[in-house]
Amino acid sequence: MEVPPPLVLKRPLFVPSKTLMGPGPSNCSQRVLEAMSNPVLGHMHPECLQIMDEVKEGIKYIFQTLNDATMCISGAGHSGMEAALCNLIEDNDVVLLGISGVWGHRAADMARRYGADVRYVEASFGRALTLDEIRAAFDTHQPRVFFVAQGDSSTGILQRHIAEIGELCRQHDCFLVVDVVASLGGTDFLMDEWKVDVAYTGSQKALGAPAGLTPISFSKRALTHIKQRKTKPKVYYFDILLIGQYWGCYGTPRIYHHTISSTLLFGLREALAHFCAMGLKNVVQRHRECSARLQLGVEELGLELFVQHEQDRLPTVNTIKVPFGVDWKKVADYAMRKYNLEISGGLGPTVGHVFRIGLMGENATLEKVDMVLSILNEAIQSIKLRAVERSKI
Amino acid sequence: MEVPPPLVLKRPLFVPSKTLMGPGPSNCSQRVLEAMSNPVLGHMHPECLQIMDEVKEGIKYIFQTLNDATMCISGAGHSGMEAALCNLIEDNDVVLLGISGVWGHRAADMARRYGADVRYVEASFGRALTLDEIRAAFDTHQPRVFFVAQGDSSTGILQRHIAEIGELCRQHDCFLVVDVVASLGGTDFLMDEWKVDVAYTGSQKALGAPAGLTPISFSKRALTHIKQRKTKPKVYYFDILLIGQYWGCYGTPRIYHHTISSTLLFGLREALAHFCAMGLKNVVQRHRECSARLQLGVEELGLELFVQHEQDRLPTVNTIKVPFGVDWKKVADYAMRKYNLEISGGLGPTVGHVFRIGLMGENATLEKVDMVLSILNEAIQSIKLRAVERSKI
Repeated sequence: MEVPPPLVLKRPLFVPSKTLMGPGPSNCSQRVLEAMSNPVLGHMHPECLQIMDEVKEGIKYIFQTLNDATMCISGAGHSGMEAALCNLIEDNDVVLLGISGVWGHRAADMARRYGADVRYVEASFGRALTLDEIRAAFDTHQPRVFFVAQGDSSTGILQRHIAEIGELCRQHDCFLVVDVVASLGGTDFLMDEWKVDVAYTGSQKALGAPAGLTPISFSKRALTHIKQRKTKPKVYYFDILLIGQYWGCYGTPRIYHHTISSTLLFGLREALAHFCAMGLKNVVQRHRECSARLQLGVEELGLELFVQHEQDRLPTVNTIKVPFGVDWKKVADYAMRKYNLEISGGLGPTVGHVFRIGLMGENATLEKVDMVLSILNEAIQSIKLRAVERSKI
Repeated sequence: MEVPPPLVLKRPLFVPSKTLMGPGPSNCSQRVLEAMSNPVLGHMHPECLQIMDEVKEGIKYIFQTLNDATMCISGAGHSGMEAALCNLIEDNDVVLLGISGVWGHRAADMARRYGADVRYVEASFGRALTLDEIRAAFDTHQPRVFFVAQGDSSTGILQRHIAEIGELCRQHDCFLVVDVVASLGGTDFLMDEWKVDVAYTGSQKALGAPAGLTPISFSKRALTHIKQRKTKPKVYYFDILLIGQYWGCYGTPRIYHHTISSTLLFGLREALAHFCAMGLKNVVQRHRECSARLQLGVEELGLELFVQHEQDRLPTVNTIKVPFGVDWKKVADYAMRKYNLEISGGLGPTVGHVFRIGLMGENATLEKVDMVLSILNEAIQSIKLRAVERSKI
């Protein structure tokens, strides 16, 4: 037997240019895209290590942390969730998951595989968790680790009160993991001040870098705990004592852990540089303004937002109820076909119920907000009209 | 407290252009580099899924396999090793590691974390394992999984007899994992014919793609076993039943598993297209010719190859003994400083003992071989001369 070379690879690569206003990835700037055409560097070359140092400083800034153990995991955002849980959890540890969409369930799946005793505290549909709900769950479960997503991209819910949750975790000798994949840059996040033990974010959201490298940071308290584990973390690839050594986090000589993608580093470095140049507060302010304008526009169109309370709404991923009788898929297809614009449907519990509109990074501008509103309206009206016409035939 | 934006990120990004003739990454072609500046695609967009399909077909060709479970792990080559072991191993399974350099030890570290009962069969220093050694180890340990690197990049050793090992594994009801990270494209590899159960390769070696996506394939036999596991694989991120579903491997609807980096897919797709256009046999032949010429040149320079037997030498990563009294680091620094050329030192047991010269992908040409020989010689002579001069002072 001989497997022949595939004919499809004789065709040239064609990549269409789209406006990505779903829950992510978001568009990269020209600066970021061009950076990735730079020649590849070796993973131990001084120029590569220098860029890693710069990326590390950029992450400290966007997380507002002084943590030494600040680095990237070489993988998608999910690998940040894995690394957070893998390093903290030992067999039979009680892990409490805050649920306001799919991400708590995803973390539960991972935690269970690592041998955790998994418990839940779940918000009512379309709402964030209240502090009272979380306090009661702490009293019941006495968790070793508490996980919560600051922004749940499946529901568009913003979890506030992270500072109070941080305090609560200290009182209960519990480690606080906060997923800021979808929220960072769109809302305040003060890792150190809020006493967060582990945070990780997506590179391909408000940061505007390509997917594939996941910024993560561990508090000194978490690091001390990890150093005192009875067993090694279950995954070499996610072992942050080893990864951090490669990233030069601990003042010890750098040791090769894996081959980092210099290409992705170039993109992330440039995205961070742009983010830093704009300034964290300005970035957050801009995302908030865009979301406020979108929310207003949505209501003016006679549509309804999925998240009831304004203060629970995530500015980066906005969820809008699909009007009765409208097929969300046809609306999304219309926007993509006619305008190369991504408007997304729901995920998990929100499938069929909501549109998700991402306002992140390059796409968090008032012009883009107006554009997406106009296209959303046109698409819905067109789909409604077609349905009416069909019913007449 | 407020963490200020780092000043280093105000400087422009500068990436030097180097000739990467260490053990990898190797240089990417201009075609591959340019592909990565394409606009980002969503991880569920039809154009992205189409590119994933094309990549899958390309991987089947380079592995010479018809396995449905052929895909990429979103991570460095190490994540391929993790995925192979994570999916096959359940607690207390006996895993036998073939050792001819560092990679068997690395796999042992991973396997132990997954709960395996780890055993070794180790080749003598600078030699490949013999079939007799492997047969004896099988009789002693009766392993459930046998791991071997076809090419160990730390020693430059090529492990032959994979077909015979495949047969042996079937006789012992054992799964065969072959690491072809450093060897693929430089030597024959016939996954199906040789009855290999899991193989994975590095994208950034002979393929000439950027690091960050790791091609992997599982045999039908391995897949059946994985479906019948008593426990879930310990890592969601490496669960190939889920990843394969996202990659459309099993004829079921594609379900989002993680956000793949479309940027890396573009690069890998173009690298595979180029590889397929050249043809597997021609690529292997070219790598062999380059290595033969390098070996001859090395001997003409009065230097000695590290791997004693010609048939045990890996064509892609060539190891040369550091001459007595010469500081390898100074030689490597000379080549880098004067010519932007990477010549690498050893890794693990070979540190200080060998130079490693990679002839992979774009750098596997006779011109590059002559260039690296000339520079290696110049560098060694210059370092020797300096040592003599210093001794006169």
